[in-house]
Amino acid sequence: MAQPFPSIPGIRLAAVPAKVKDWQRDDLLLIDIAEGAAVSATFTQNAFCAAPVLVAKEHIQQGGIRALLINAGNANAATGEQGLLDANRCCAGVAEALGVSAQQVLPFSTGVIGEHLPVQNILSAIPSAAAQLRPDGWESAAAAIMTTDTRPKTASRSVTIAGEKISIVGIAKGAGMIQPNMATMLAYVATDARIPQDVLDSLVQEAVAASFNRISVDGDTSTNDACVLIASGATGPEVADTHSDAYAQLKAAIIGVHIELAQAIVKDGEGATKFVTVQVNNAASSEEALSMAFEIGESPLVKTALYASDPNWGRLVMAIGNAGATDLDTSKISVYLDNVQIVDAGGRASSYTEDAGQKVFEQAEFTISVDLQRGNVNEHIWTCDFSHEYVTINAEYRT
Amino acid sequence: MAQPFPSIPGIRLAAVPAKVKDWQRDDLLLIDIAEGAAVSATFTQNAFCAAPVLVAKEHIQQGGIRALLINAGNANAATGEQGLLDANRCCAGVAEALGVSAQQVLPFSTGVIGEHLPVQNILSAIPSAAAQLRPDGWESAAAAIMTTDTRPKTASRSVTIAGEKISIVGIAKGAGMIQPNMATMLAYVATDARIPQDVLDSLVQEAVAASFNRISVDGDTSTNDACVLIASGATGPEVADTHSDAYAQLKAAIIGVHIELAQAIVKDGEGATKFVTVQVNNAASSEEALSMAFEIGESPLVKTALYASDPNWGRLVMAIGNAGATDLDTSKISVYLDNVQIVDAGGRASSYTEDAGQKVFEQAEFTISVDLQRGNVNEHIWTCDFSHEYVTINAEYRT
Repeated sequence: MAQPFPSIPGIRLAAVPAKVKDWQRDDLLLIDIAEGAAVSATFTQNAFCAAPVLVAKEHIQQGGIRALLINAGNANAATGEQGLLDANRCCAGVAEALGVSAQQVLPFSTGVIGEHLPVQNILSAIPSAAAQLRPDGWESAAAAIMTTDTRPKTASRSVTIAGEKISIVGIAKGAGMIQPNMATMLAYVATDARIPQDVLDSLVQEAVAASFNRISVDGDTSTNDACVLIASGATGPEVADTHSDAYAQLKAAIIGVHIELAQAIVKDGEGATKFVTVQVNNAASSEEALSMAFEIGESPLVKTALYASDPNWGRLVMAIGNAGATDLDTSKISVYLDNVQIVDAGGRASSYTEDAGQKVFEQAEFTISVDLQRGNVNEHIWTCDFSHEYVTINAEYRT
Repeated sequence: MAQPFPSIPGIRLAAVPAKVKDWQRDDLLLIDIAEGAAVSATFTQNAFCAAPVLVAKEHIQQGGIRALLINAGNANAATGEQGLLDANRCCAGVAEALGVSAQQVLPFSTGVIGEHLPVQNILSAIPSAAAQLRPDGWESAAAAIMTTDTRPKTASRSVTIAGEKISIVGIAKGAGMIQPNMATMLAYVATDARIPQDVLDSLVQEAVAASFNRISVDGDTSTNDACVLIASGATGPEVADTHSDAYAQLKAAIIGVHIELAQAIVKDGEGATKFVTVQVNNAASSEEALSMAFEIGESPLVKTALYASDPNWGRLVMAIGNAGATDLDTSKISVYLDNVQIVDAGGRASSYTEDAGQKVFEQAEFTISVDLQRGNVNEHIWTCDFSHEYVTINAEYRT
């Protein structure tokens, strides 16, 4: 039997069906947060950001967040003034049900863009969600926020601080429109540790930089993404000293949850059949390394070669050459597929055989690494392949 | 009967089979240029640029170009020192056959990356090509340089200058790895007009900016692209005054040939079923307008919606929001599908019906236009959709 999924003292959840779309499933998630918790978040960089994102950004600045409301099936994006009114009405509904103020509620939406939210359906479902709040609802919560995902995404860790067991749990959704700076991706990570607001604020940035900002499914960034990190403060002493062992341990576990969720999104990438790490080593800067890794990981020609299990290294060098690295000396470049060297000094490695490359590409998971020999910065991203199924899913979604 | 394709006094061509790959077809094109012609070119921006590109760039700087040699089937890219030797040996072969110097020959290659050129096969075929040179070979020339293209691409125009008929003809190849700044794309445009070198140099830049730098099939840029413009000078007076009517007329015709070839590449885009113009109007700058047009035209989610004939305008606003335009006021944005308004003031236009949008998207050709209302710059690009066939072609190419 699998271990029961941990719950987080200070946090309760409920997933209910609200008929956001004409379907039979839980599509509304309410998360209740005890007073005194710290809540931090990062949001989409898309300029056309959705109404709930605008409202959530405003509310989180006031602090004292007590609840999150997330609906799947409708993004409430590109909905103008009406969209803002709708998001605020949802917050007011939660506020009434929980006895908090509307400013203490963060709204989130994911789904189809450009249609008005069925607010009345959501408002009708909130009281029943409030009545069902319980601490152990994370797995059904992960299912309720899915859209084109094929499976719910959860992760958990625990650490011991001052003799007390601290838990970290997370849920995420996302399978397409995935790119750095938040994609059609929602993630909620919670711990019962006590972390001051300013420490949590920088921790969420670090965790997202190490996880969700390193993944790509199709290079598109959505209007609605958010990653929220909650520290309920219910257990243990305050972890405020960022140089302490306790902080290091907690941070590693929190980042571990973020990475596991980010990787789960790539693995569930629309139509994905491969999970590939792209590593760029010995680059002149982190920016250079990451932009080259993304150039490789997002190239449709590379991604179709991954799908075909075809070690078409010409497409790899094409992508390397397109990454915009200035004064790149291609004669110094090596490329490896796992530990098989495919490119040496900018040309085909003499030891390379098509068979060896093919073997790596046939695996469900592998690493493409590029050595630029022009600095000492290493960076990596995670990507997936581009399949017939991707086209089918995205040609048919919405109909 | 169709008009016979014009020939260009001062230019002769021959396409021959050279067995660059194990296939039965013409795959080597020799173009012979009369003494005194002016030749200009633009090349790929890819840092991993191919050996023939490096050699051609060097040779064209010396001037006095007398021949072009183009092979399909092998890109001679990522081939290191050997690749440079191979490209130079091909130039020497042409020089010997035509009685010119190797520096007067420009080499071009397109095809698979990372394999050495079968130089001996090419050298053996050059004498027979030289013996078959004739002025009316443009259509078979266009066929000889094809790779994944499904059809040869040619265009022609004529203008009358000082009572003399001047012709402009062009051929191009390219169907994938197509993106601004030269893609897996080769284009050769020739005229018998007499144009000074410096005027021709700026004309080729202008023509490429108006044509090949406005197209995208998959956002990838190849290692081998080039666009060459030849003015043989065989007919009419010198056209040197860029303020003259003669120049304006000639320039319009030359750019017309470039645009027709560029559009033919998009229409023959790998797996393409739609030809779509993306127009961004009233932008603050040309850069802003073009980068937004490309963000829309290259988004896999937009391109799969085009394929599905699904006017999924949420994906359009997503792409608009991702284009990196600073301080974008989304409440001012309108979007049109041909003349059907779909977005008004950042939200769904009240007049819009799904039926009307669907009708436009079902057409083989249409225009998506975005009005930003924040400046007076308009720009456009041409793109195609992303189909099952694209995945099939690119998952199977090379095997």
